[in-house]
Amino acid sequence: MSFSPLDSLVLGPLFRTDAMAEVFSDASLVRAMLRVETALARAQAAHGLAPAALGEALDRLAPETLDLAALGRATAVAGVPAIPFVKALQTLLPSDLEPFFHQGATTQDIVDGALVLQMREAFALLREDLAGVLDGLCALAIRTRDVPCAGRTYGQHAAPVTFGYKVAVWLAGIADEAVRLQPVREAALVASLGGPVGTLASLGEKGPAVLDAFARELGLRAPPIAWHTRRTAVTGTGLWLASLLAALGKMATDIVNLAATEVGEVAEPPMPGRGGSSAMPHKRNPVGATLILAAGDAAAGPAVTLLSAMQQAAHERPAGAWHAEWQALPLLFGLASGALAEARRLAVGLQVDEARMRANLEMTRGLLFADAASGVLAGTLGRAEAHARVERAAGLVREGGTNLLDVLLHLSDLPADVDRATLRGAFDLGPSIAAGARFVDRAVAAIRPLVASL
Amino acid sequence: MSFSPLDSLVLGPLFRTDAMAEVFSDASLVRAMLRVETALARAQAAHGLAPAALGEALDRLAPETLDLAALGRATAVAGVPAIPFVKALQTLLPSDLEPFFHQGATTQDIVDGALVLQMREAFALLREDLAGVLDGLCALAIRTRDVPCAGRTYGQHAAPVTFGYKVAVWLAGIADEAVRLQPVREAALVASLGGPVGTLASLGEKGPAVLDAFARELGLRAPPIAWHTRRTAVTGTGLWLASLLAALGKMATDIVNLAATEVGEVAEPPMPGRGGSSAMPHKRNPVGATLILAAGDAAAGPAVTLLSAMQQAAHERPAGAWHAEWQALPLLFGLASGALAEARRLAVGLQVDEARMRANLEMTRGLLFADAASGVLAGTLGRAEAHARVERAAGLVREGGTNLLDVLLHLSDLPADVDRATLRGAFDLGPSIAAGARFVDRAVAAIRPLVASL
Amino acid sequence: MSFSPLDSLVLGPLFRTDAMAEVFSDASLVRAMLRVETALARAQAAHGLAPAALGEALDRLAPETLDLAALGRATAVAGVPAIPFVKALQTLLPSDLEPFFHQGATTQDIVDGALVLQMREAFALLREDLAGVLDGLCALAIRTRDVPCAGRTYGQHAAPVTFGYKVAVWLAGIADEAVRLQPVREAALVASLGGPVGTLASLGEKGPAVLDAFARELGLRAPPIAWHTRRTAVTGTGLWLASLLAALGKMATDIVNLAATEVGEVAEPPMPGRGGSSAMPHKRNPVGATLILAAGDAAAGPAVTLLSAMQQAAHERPAGAWHAEWQALPLLFGLASGALAEARRLAVGLQVDEARMRANLEMTRGLLFADAASGVLAGTLGRAEAHARVERAAGLVREGGTNLLDVLLHLSDLPADVDRATLRGAFDLGPSIAAGARFVDRAVAAIRPLVASL
Amino acid sequence: MSFSPLDSLVLGPLFRTDAMAEVFSDASLVRAMLRVETALARAQAAHGLAPAALGEALDRLAPETLDLAALGRATAVAGVPAIPFVKALQTLLPSDLEPFFHQGATTQDIVDGALVLQMREAFALLREDLAGVLDGLCALAIRTRDVPCAGRTYGQHAAPVTFGYKVAVWLAGIADEAVRLQPVREAALVASLGGPVGTLASLGEKGPAVLDAFARELGLRAPPIAWHTRRTAVTGTGLWLASLLAALGKMATDIVNLAATEVGEVAEPPMPGRGGSSAMPHKRNPVGATLILAAGDAAAGPAVTLLSAMQQAAHERPAGAWHAEWQALPLLFGLASGALAEARRLAVGLQVDEARMRANLEMTRGLLFADAASGVLAGTLGRAEAHARVERAAGLVREGGTNLLDVLLHLSDLPADVDRATLRGAFDLGPSIAAGARFVDRAVAAIRPLVASL
Repeated sequence: MSFSPLDSLVLGPLFRTDAMAEVFSDASLVRAMLRVETALARAQAAHGLAPAALGEALDRLAPETLDLAALGRATAVAGVPAIPFVKALQTLLPSDLEPFFHQGATTQDIVDGALVLQMREAFALLREDLAGVLDGLCALAIRTRDVPCAGRTYGQHAAPVTFGYKVAVWLAGIADEAVRLQPVREAALVASLGGPVGTLASLGEKGPAVLDAFARELGLRAPPIAWHTRRTAVTGTGLWLASLLAALGKMATDIVNLAATEVGEVAEPPMPGRGGSSAMPHKRNPVGATLILAAGDAAAGPAVTLLSAMQQAAHERPAGAWHAEWQALPLLFGLASGALAEARRLAVGLQVDEARMRANLEMTRGLLFADAASGVLAGTLGRAEAHARVERAAGLVREGGTNLLDVLLHLSDLPADVDRATLRGAFDLGPSIAAGARFVDRAVAAIRPLVASL
Repeated sequence: MSFSPLDSLVLGPLFRTDAMAEVFSDASLVRAMLRVETALARAQAAHGLAPAALGEALDRLAPETLDLAALGRATAVAGVPAIPFVKALQTLLPSDLEPFFHQGATTQDIVDGALVLQMREAFALLREDLAGVLDGLCALAIRTRDVPCAGRTYGQHAAPVTFGYKVAVWLAGIADEAVRLQPVREAALVASLGGPVGTLASLGEKGPAVLDAFARELGLRAPPIAWHTRRTAVTGTGLWLASLLAALGKMATDIVNLAATEVGEVAEPPMPGRGGSSAMPHKRNPVGATLILAAGDAAAGPAVTLLSAMQQAAHERPAGAWHAEWQALPLLFGLASGALAEARRLAVGLQVDEARMRANLEMTRGLLFADAASGVLAGTLGRAEAHARVERAAGLVREGGTNLLDVLLHLSDLPADVDRATLRGAFDLGPSIAAGARFVDRAVAAIRPLVASL
Repeated sequence: MSFSPLDSLVLGPLFRTDAMAEVFSDASLVRAMLRVETALARAQAAHGLAPAALGEALDRLAPETLDLAALGRATAVAGVPAIPFVKALQTLLPSDLEPFFHQGATTQDIVDGALVLQMREAFALLREDLAGVLDGLCALAIRTRDVPCAGRTYGQHAAPVTFGYKVAVWLAGIADEAVRLQPVREAALVASLGGPVGTLASLGEKGPAVLDAFARELGLRAPPIAWHTRRTAVTGTGLWLASLLAALGKMATDIVNLAATEVGEVAEPPMPGRGGSSAMPHKRNPVGATLILAAGDAAAGPAVTLLSAMQQAAHERPAGAWHAEWQALPLLFGLASGALAEARRLAVGLQVDEARMRANLEMTRGLLFADAASGVLAGTLGRAEAHARVERAAGLVREGGTNLLDVLLHLSDLPADVDRATLRGAFDLGPSIAAGARFVDRAVAAIRPLVASL
Repeated sequence: MSFSPLDSLVLGPLFRTDAMAEVFSDASLVRAMLRVETALARAQAAHGLAPAALGEALDRLAPETLDLAALGRATAVAGVPAIPFVKALQTLLPSDLEPFFHQGATTQDIVDGALVLQMREAFALLREDLAGVLDGLCALAIRTRDVPCAGRTYGQHAAPVTFGYKVAVWLAGIADEAVRLQPVREAALVASLGGPVGTLASLGEKGPAVLDAFARELGLRAPPIAWHTRRTAVTGTGLWLASLLAALGKMATDIVNLAATEVGEVAEPPMPGRGGSSAMPHKRNPVGATLILAAGDAAAGPAVTLLSAMQQAAHERPAGAWHAEWQALPLLFGLASGALAEARRLAVGLQVDEARMRANLEMTRGLLFADAASGVLAGTLGRAEAHARVERAAGLVREGGTNLLDVLLHLSDLPADVDRATLRGAFDLGPSIAAGARFVDRAVAAIRPLVASL
């Protein structure tokens, strides 16, 4: 069954990693719910509210024996999965322990708690691939720091950069998101135990202490107050994932453009069988970048759902907004897993065609140096007049002039006090390469320590 | 596995119907892809481009014998499912027929074609539940056309309406979407056959005729030109689904509000086991409305994805935007299936507490008739002065006055020429009931014919 | 002041037309509100509920004498503009007419009514530019129907098309939206008169008749029931505008790609001063396409706002959702006005470089004919084997082979029974041109009548 | 003119503060652009690349003398405002200084630079109101920490809390966003100076040093590498604003619900003229909460625009995505300004009706204590059986039973070993009040230090 391609046998492997699919599987959900109940039993035992035997009994239960389809049918009636889940466990517990089971907790504590445990595993998976992407891009930026390449604005050749510079921009953008992994993760990994309305009233004075113990059992932070209807952490996680996908998407956008037949400056790392077409035997489609872009395009939607759910989290539990979150957050983790895996492959193996970059640089016969030339002329002519003159010369080049330098030198009215050698120097690639390389070094120096500490 | 709850064994039954899950199952996808190839073979046979035996051979293939997991692994490499699918079928066909297989078509023709066939079944499912919702609401509106009930604006009592009137507003809103089912469906059910770049060049002059025949084989409309990168129909379908969910959501919003403990005017139809809580034995939560709202909240996101994919459909096939659609459209059909099923249950079985409505009407001691009283006074005092006077009197009622009529009558400065009987008449529920009933009749008369013709 | 660039003196002219700015100006808003009140007075006079003199008196009021800033300050207190607006007018009316003013109406009737009048003018403006776009694209498609051009998928050369074919795809996409202008407009141009809770109770039995007369006065349709919280038409209009912007965006996406320096197949129509850069004197940026894309990117957001507002339209007037609409719909009309104006300019004046298209077609040395060649070989070798062989040959071409035909002919194992002449024929542009042209004719024939009837 | 209500004379004051309108006015934009050019001149002077006199000359220019409408007309041609702006200034500068003006910079440096300066002022405005909101809510939470109040889930009474507890949840949610103000602000306040393609090539080796000096001049951080197409900070700011609006929206959602006529537990602070209706003289609409919700509903849209723009930031400057940002970020600051101002008013002045809260607590005759009663019974009966028994008793109460305690005590089969006193104790409000108060203290203790350090 598959409304989301992430869950499809046929399409899933295209969009998400197997490891992430395991984290968000039905089996993992049920296992995590059981783990939450077990931690609750232990925390209560520590405070004399339940026998220690309850936690042990729960530990011995095998979540895989639960009938998931039956749980599903009962959930459709109950409205939440925790109700049939609790009922199913109650029948499995010894009758002397059962009264202490699920004590003080509510549905949302169990379901949100399970989500947090799944998120913890999910963050760990993302972190590894994220470090791989950053490592790969650092190396690629340094390897190509001096490789000249056209800089383009609005799709038009603008002025030369180096390919390493372009990579350093991707790197810095993804690093901007990576530095937020830690705070986002910390904000998200918070225990949920509030009971029906969040105040843990049924535990009396021991409420906060049990909450703290419960959080410790799970290795999570204890919140200052329940987050049943304070959804910052969930929304924040989702927005971060969407933003991370957008940062990866910027890299993919550039790769698709640079891999276009007419540009041909990069190609995705070869993988047998990838990039072909059912009709066209010659195709080498940028499949990795395609998948990253698709993930990014699909990510803004769930982000919207989370923002709106956060606002509508009425009273002590809303009618609709909480259930809406379920439609959004796991999808974002799934999309991020696939996009990061593809990005890592690209970062490590992207093929760079230096010769083609050179050829492209020469294609506009000097126009790429228009800004530099204008800068030289400005010294003599003033900035406005220099700009206008180069604009005119560029038009002549486009209409068939040999190249910009020639045209500028031969314009009859070039003032005598313009230094010809300096003007010629404006058409040298060297300064552009040096300028690109400088910022590669600056960016990598700033980002390297981060990768180590991720 | 389940990134989307719609695909979960545990959560799925809560959010989508079994029938819709079947339509979008992996098995249905593969079956539909095979059906597209078969129709192509037949259309080409009809024009002498393939032997008739190819269609028959394809007919005999059992799609359930294909190894879906293997297809998935190959899809992750190829980037699209049609490539491994075509390869798998090629090995199953007699060698004299194989050269004619998939002739002229491209990946997107097969995948989009399968989607259209799935959409056709999905529309049929939605139509049935939609008719059920409209039928149920027509009956409910008529049954309660004369039941007085507080009208509320900004959550505050405003003036009386009838409950039937409120239902008629829901009905009209959902009917607004229902009238678009037919045009949206027609726009969506279009054959896709364009080959690599949409022009069917490999079929030569017979291209358009084969396209027309192919469409007839599938019972679809033939397009004037390929829609590989003209995604109006896909986006239009998604926006309609999102809009339908919002119309259902308006009804659910009202039901949640009217079912609130303090209001208590409606309750969801009783269903054993539904509406409870794992902690609170007394709860009767509006689960149906909750699920409709969650679906509506989750629908805007995929709508955004489709709009952005439509714009980014570059050249003759985009890198990313087409794959992004897959993340959006089936989800919307799934959400709509669940929300419509819940809405139908509510439309048919909503419990209406007339006594509670009466009690609520009396709760503000006449303030609900402030507009009517002001209208009466305006005749003598002018509209501005009448409004100000009633505003003042309303303040006195809030601070403990008996009721608005009394306060108005006993304000020392009530001009003698204000007719007391007419003023008393302003506090009669009768005109409000009649006014509500009039619009129930008007709306039902306009909508009934539609339901029949849906 | 300018939170939206559409409203900025500096940025506004970039993004919206002056005519549309006039439609949504503060002055137009107030004028439209007054017109609604006047129509109400007249409709009531026709049914004996108000003196005819009221309508005349309102007609004589000059809306431009109202102090907009004072209205604004009072609106910030009142929460809606209609309250201070009504108060301001009350003081201007003769005391014998004042009691009949705004009778039976509520704030929302006036504000929604004004919006509908503004939308009517806005639709008329859009229609004209939309017709201009379609006309221009029809002509361009026909003019370039036989101009060969590379078809591209995933940014890679795929197979030849004609430029006219590409234009016809844009045309058909925009026409898909244009055919919906009429139904969307009709659904939107509906009168709003419901009074406080929508039932027009204060007008008694005459309510529906006054509503019908009011609608006639304004040249609008009368609704079957109030639409205060049934927002299909507003949301539907917004979704249509967003969808129209996405259709224009597809064209702009292609133009940006085709205008890229390395592709160079199209250029925007020259406009003195347009397309330059503050730094780079040689730039010819695709400014028109840039503005269309920016408008499309900005359109999905307001569409989301409208969907969510529709769902949250609680009771007889919501707290928030209605006010949220105001943040969305006018922006969409503004964005559409600017994008259509730019699109019209592009449709009429796009520069097409046929020579560059030819050069690009030759750039991959025959790979563009891989599908055609594979089709020829399939007859002898079977489809799978033919595909594999051409894939291999394409690799050799990429690694330096002369061209695909040569490589295929000289592969030592080319079976004798492959007809060399037929294989050579696969490398002929003719069939691709004919195929493209066929669909240009088919699309234009289908769309032309529409343009006439828009 | 007004496509956005934020920019309307009539509607603007409803949705944004005057101070924020000033920050984003056209005049401020032009002033900020000039300030950026001045800082650039000074930084270059410090490194010997320009005469000191240039900075002084620029300092003397009065930005208000620029003709904004003329700038707008020229911007519509040029495609960006910086081009005509630079031209206009060039004519005002002495000819010996002009050559050094705008040296090394590009359009985007000036426009993004101005945006950053505007954001700095905007952040300062938000910080003040945000501190006011937190202060107000801390005080309100403490003042009402022991005021009992119904806790509600799915709109249904669930179990008692205190009103202070509810306020503490709002407080903690808004504080979650407030703690991110500092990092978001720091990430956003970064200088932009990259020149045409981001590498500052025209400044040679001095590039990075000039960038650092330029940043110091403006009091901003210098980036490791250009952010022309690395939009994390812009998107991050927008997502934070949307998220902040959602946190405020949660509070407003609750206020609208609690202010509903039937609930009546809170009322907005009285403001003469606010909360009325043009038709209904008795209304006290929750206008402040309405405006906050409208702002929240309108915020998700621009957030989507920013995410999509970030991904599409192609090459060294994109065609569309950058212009799209302009449609999103200022709107979010405007919406946040208005919503925070309203939230501050609510936090400081919300009216709390303790008597009504008491009355509502009693309205369900003990059902609010069902969880507590079930907890007591579980000790003897086991959890499942206790839950079932209380569920049954709750049904009897709903059908007319006196109250839950009575019904439970008189069920014929109540086992003798259930301690009656303990069961009675379950119906005591005390523990719920204590539980609510405990978390008020815990939350305020955690948040207070933050307010001080904001």
